[in-house]
Amino acid sequence: MSAVSPLAPKGFPRLPTVAGVSLAAAACGIKKRVRSDLMIAELVPGTRIAGVFTTSLTAGPTVRWCREAIRNGRARAIVVNSGNANVFTGRKGAADVRATARAAARAIGCAAEDIMVSATGVIGVPLPIDKITRALPDLAAAAAPGNWEAAARAICTTDTFPKGAGATARIGGVTVRIAGIAKGSGMIMPNMATMLAYVFTDAALPAPVLRKLLKAACDRSFNAITVDSDTSTSDTLLLAATGQAEPHRIITRADDPALRDFRAKLDAVMIDLAKQIVRDGEGATKFVTITVTGAASDRSAKTIAMSVANSPLVKTAIAGADANWGRIVAAVGKAGERINADRLTVSVGGVRITENGAPRQGYREAPVARHMKGRTIDIAVDVGLRPGRGTATVWTCDLTHGYISINGDYRS
Amino acid sequence: MSAVSPLAPKGFPRLPTVAGVSLAAAACGIKKRVRSDLMIAELVPGTRIAGVFTTSLTAGPTVRWCREAIRNGRARAIVVNSGNANVFTGRKGAADVRATARAAARAIGCAAEDIMVSATGVIGVPLPIDKITRALPDLAAAAAPGNWEAAARAICTTDTFPKGAGATARIGGVTVRIAGIAKGSGMIMPNMATMLAYVFTDAALPAPVLRKLLKAACDRSFNAITVDSDTSTSDTLLLAATGQAEPHRIITRADDPALRDFRAKLDAVMIDLAKQIVRDGEGATKFVTITVTGAASDRSAKTIAMSVANSPLVKTAIAGADANWGRIVAAVGKAGERINADRLTVSVGGVRITENGAPRQGYREAPVARHMKGRTIDIAVDVGLRPGRGTATVWTCDLTHGYISINGDYRS
Repeated sequence: MSAVSPLAPKGFPRLPTVAGVSLAAAACGIKKRVRSDLMIAELVPGTRIAGVFTTSLTAGPTVRWCREAIRNGRARAIVVNSGNANVFTGRKGAADVRATARAAARAIGCAAEDIMVSATGVIGVPLPIDKITRALPDLAAAAAPGNWEAAARAICTTDTFPKGAGATARIGGVTVRIAGIAKGSGMIMPNMATMLAYVFTDAALPAPVLRKLLKAACDRSFNAITVDSDTSTSDTLLLAATGQAEPHRIITRADDPALRDFRAKLDAVMIDLAKQIVRDGEGATKFVTITVTGAASDRSAKTIAMSVANSPLVKTAIAGADANWGRIVAAVGKAGERINADRLTVSVGGVRITENGAPRQGYREAPVARHMKGRTIDIAVDVGLRPGRGTATVWTCDLTHGYISINGDYRS
Repeated sequence: MSAVSPLAPKGFPRLPTVAGVSLAAAACGIKKRVRSDLMIAELVPGTRIAGVFTTSLTAGPTVRWCREAIRNGRARAIVVNSGNANVFTGRKGAADVRATARAAARAIGCAAEDIMVSATGVIGVPLPIDKITRALPDLAAAAAPGNWEAAARAICTTDTFPKGAGATARIGGVTVRIAGIAKGSGMIMPNMATMLAYVFTDAALPAPVLRKLLKAACDRSFNAITVDSDTSTSDTLLLAATGQAEPHRIITRADDPALRDFRAKLDAVMIDLAKQIVRDGEGATKFVTITVTGAASDRSAKTIAMSVANSPLVKTAIAGADANWGRIVAAVGKAGERINADRLTVSVGGVRITENGAPRQGYREAPVARHMKGRTIDIAVDVGLRPGRGTATVWTCDLTHGYISINGDYRS
């Protein structure tokens, strides 16, 4: 593992124990160096689950398996290996997913279809499936509540720190808990999905409600980040509800007002996880927030924000602490979305730089240059439509020599 | 100027003199260091011209000027400054373009609307217009045929070598000449246009014919390259025909069979220039050809090829000579175009790696690894549709520490 990202949080957070979720991790030998690379999250019977998955058309067999298995809205365990994505591995790849699910199901005592399977790592290499199936019985036996950090570590690849976030929320006077873990560092531009992320709650929520909550929260969190514009083949986000909290009011609709606090807390947990992925972006030294306003629609604003967030020239300027805002203008222009260039305003670190299609009278670069030297960069663009109610916020990191070093020699 | 790209041609090519075109270059003081930064290409009266320009919605006032001025299909000169793009410079920027055109028109004796103006360099900085207008009379007086290399040098910014290409062609038994110059190194993903490129011929071709020829050749050349996915605000490609060759058959249609050789040579010149831009891609150490076949349409094939060509993970793997073809699969998958993943085949250096959605039986990495160590990398992807007649070829370069170094500190 490389040196820990300079943007990493101080340590792994204290997460609430979610009743009905037991976790364990092990080093089963998929990774070259001895590092934990297999994780199980067992779920109490009756757990409901929802998921969103990569839109990649070369998605691997784990994603295809999960899409099928999740249809009934139930699950008894999530099994994840790291070190090998099991993608583009043909029939053996699909058979390996079935074998994993069967081995886990045997260990737990459930149907194979109740097992969600994920994998992350190198693409196109056959999985050492025996190592996984041999390890699963002991792993399942070792699972215990609260093992969040060990589970979060076991799903890492080029990550430099394990990622977790949690919260408590109230549903009609009853306290429920939310905890989630995620991994991701490179190949990060989730597209209606995410890298690997697993969020758990002890609330009692039916699968259709979970699906709606998850989709909405995902668009505001994982679908609003990018490290390098490379959408993964394996993006998977699952939300499981064990129903083991103190009984609360029965929820049948995602827009039930009783869910207001829960929705806010779920958003917060998922945004926290998503930001941690950016903070661990390969080679990242700066955390960048890009806000676009004045656009034709939220969708249009997001396209523009992503165009800025994915621009190598913007990202390298940030890496070099260069207040080269002209590159932001160019990235807005190439997005192809409707703007009013003559009213476009660019602000960096809260300093408004442009006005009426030109630098502001009396614009001084010094305060912007100071901001650019910091760890946290704020870019705001108003694209000048009147009315233009479309807004979006996305998060990204800079593009540095570290990214090149990590990815120029990832496999060796 | 940085060290010359390892992919640079041996030297500037010998280009044919195109009767009716006179060129001159000077260092007028826009660039910080004394380097030539102003170029004029004077065109004999009667010259016809066509152009394509950036699709960026933050295009600068030079592009807006040219779009207007080129409507009548005539021009008497092209004036280009480097070191300052005159983009996002408000009313002063637009006034500076008019001032440049007027000064050049006065020096030559024509209307301001007969002057095409381009600018390239930093965005958002007011142009030192007096330096340009003061230099233009002497520059115009110094213009002479055949000064291709000096002209090509004067339009460079982060380029490490000047770019030129030429050919002779036959139109109905008469020899005509084609010569072109171009610049570009970063902010290169032309979108229905190009970076700065100027192509001249002494053939006698009306503007509507030039427009069609230029559009078709552009799609096969400049619109098929990418360095860093960042479409510029200033992309400009002009094709001027002086009509000073020996009289040839009168041409009124772009599809006239008499133009067959001319079209082929124009394509060749423009592809040569486009490839030179890739060879001078910021930080480039490898020249990469990506061919996609078996797609639903040529447009679809190009989208997929560009998705591979712009993938930072593919580009860094190439930089590291890593035969990590899984990243190619992922880049194909994220393109969102129709494919058959189970029949997708990836070949690198002519070695077919995959078959039926998995690595080929007996695939050995050694020959692919050897190919990846070379300067010229060939990637071929068949996306497996049957029938799938869509094909595309695009050219790009690797993504290296050099790119980060150049762009992390471009302005200082």
